[in-house]
Amino acid sequence: MSIRIGIVGYGNLGKGVEIGISQRPDMELVGIFTRRDMKDTGDVKFYNYKDILEFKDKIDVLILCGGSANDIPEQAPFLAEHFNTVDSYDNHNKIPEYFEKINSITTENKKTSVISSGWDPGLFSINRVLAESILPSGETYTFWGRGVSQGHSDAVRRVEGVAAAAQYTIPNTELIENIKAGHSVKYTGHSAHKRHCYVVLEEGANAEKVRDAIVNMPDYFVGYETKVDFISMEEYEAHHKGMPHGGVVIRRGYTDDEHMSIYEFSLELASNPEFTAAVSLAYARACYNLHANGEYGAKTVLDIPLRYLSPKPYDELLKMI
Amino acid sequence: MSIRIGIVGYGNLGKGVEIGISQRPDMELVGIFTRRDMKDTGDVKFYNYKDILEFKDKIDVLILCGGSANDIPEQAPFLAEHFNTVDSYDNHNKIPEYFEKINSITTENKKTSVISSGWDPGLFSINRVLAESILPSGETYTFWGRGVSQGHSDAVRRVEGVAAAAQYTIPNTELIENIKAGHSVKYTGHSAHKRHCYVVLEEGANAEKVRDAIVNMPDYFVGYETKVDFISMEEYEAHHKGMPHGGVVIRRGYTDDEHMSIYEFSLELASNPEFTAAVSLAYARACYNLHANGEYGAKTVLDIPLRYLSPKPYDELLKMI
Repeated sequence: MSIRIGIVGYGNLGKGVEIGISQRPDMELVGIFTRRDMKDTGDVKFYNYKDILEFKDKIDVLILCGGSANDIPEQAPFLAEHFNTVDSYDNHNKIPEYFEKINSITTENKKTSVISSGWDPGLFSINRVLAESILPSGETYTFWGRGVSQGHSDAVRRVEGVAAAAQYTIPNTELIENIKAGHSVKYTGHSAHKRHCYVVLEEGANAEKVRDAIVNMPDYFVGYETKVDFISMEEYEAHHKGMPHGGVVIRRGYTDDEHMSIYEFSLELASNPEFTAAVSLAYARACYNLHANGEYGAKTVLDIPLRYLSPKPYDELLKMI
Repeated sequence: MSIRIGIVGYGNLGKGVEIGISQRPDMELVGIFTRRDMKDTGDVKFYNYKDILEFKDKIDVLILCGGSANDIPEQAPFLAEHFNTVDSYDNHNKIPEYFEKINSITTENKKTSVISSGWDPGLFSINRVLAESILPSGETYTFWGRGVSQGHSDAVRRVEGVAAAAQYTIPNTELIENIKAGHSVKYTGHSAHKRHCYVVLEEGANAEKVRDAIVNMPDYFVGYETKVDFISMEEYEAHHKGMPHGGVVIRRGYTDDEHMSIYEFSLELASNPEFTAAVSLAYARACYNLHANGEYGAKTVLDIPLRYLSPKPYDELLKMI
């Protein structure tokens, strides 16, 4: 019997989940729920989001693929009352509050929701907690990139005179090497990353004015080493429409006065949304297993035994240890 | 209230656990149990292993620090009847059988045992299972080193004419780079690692005969690219008595036909036994928490929610996500 999945939202993440299900023989896609008007394609059924409650008994786990700013905070409390859900809610500051809200809804309704299940939050959270638990005496550092930041790319696109743009976040590899070499370092958000913008100008736009507007943009670019390259639309279309990303969590800890340990977890992803979808699907399996065991409530990646993420029976997993 | 720890066995791992407890304010060392005749040092109490049952109610978790070949298979079934235990049993092939045995003893006696909790098995097992669960379409590769292999060093020391020796296992970095670059590779135990021996000869020993005996030793060196360097006892004492180790688990997976993801977990450890001890201590905390929750039986790293490994309360952990 396969796990019946529903997808809510059909942006890049929703498309990634759709592709991911086709790689997993223990899962099947019931349908994609969106507010947009979509035609069924091949075997894939699209439904209007407002009809979703008709699928209460036909879906084991709903994967919420909307944005963390507006979609998930609005949809999750409603959906978690009726469905088991998985999301990759990534508003770090609000996760504790979000957890409490979803936990009370799901506990009351005997549902299970896995929240914040992507790679950061998600896999990076696992490694931050695991590394600190093992090496209490030390420091943890997180670096993002090299990869495209959607938020920063959008900010550049809003600058007057910009026709298209991609912003790459680039980790400071010298800083990473110094951490691993045991040198004393100054790690700040600003020193840890550089920003590289590839910008297509609108006809007649003033390149220097655009560059100034970008590098002096508060919150997004001020304080960072920022490089702006102007390129043609052809070059943009050919080389900068992908969504690669990645990053690294490093903990440098000392097991005694002189012995250093470097604990490092890294990802290098050709497709950020497809990988995030892949993590969500592993946690959708865990969500299904937890619910089947009567473990209701909101769960984070810190609450879930890893055996629940695998399609393999436990005796097969023991052989992988 | 702190977690009361007992140490069984006082080799390198046992000493690492002793040091590690001093870094963890939520733990205290009740005593070290050994068959050797030891005098108390400072606050540390040594007891004879045969008297261990007198401590049944004075210890929350026993950490078994003996060898996996003889000590643990003999001691664990006896101790798990009376104590919660943590070990780093590393005989990979026999883990399923060992799990069954300890699971039945602990379930019957309402005790909790965490088995095979070091870094391989242990953290590497976590990453092999997690990576495969997320990226079903791909391959996982494990590399060990650069580090000292005790087993191989011992084998070299047994060669006639050898006064002292250290054997370093060295991962094939070119192979690692090829994996990460997406090239097709031939990964075998032999192609993935090289072996480098630093050997001190006994007076009058024939260097070429010693080298031949090493590189042609079946199981240990045949089939590997092996380098043998002869050094003085002074150089050995100064540079080769440490126990560094480490390694990397890489999964190369494809989220669709063209998008590659590189998932990588690595460790670089100045002291292998101290880091293994640090992992055991995090799992000793988990063992204590599981037992307090009434979760009895044998547990592996795949069974344990990561929140149980941390001394922090859950609301603090949510902020780390």
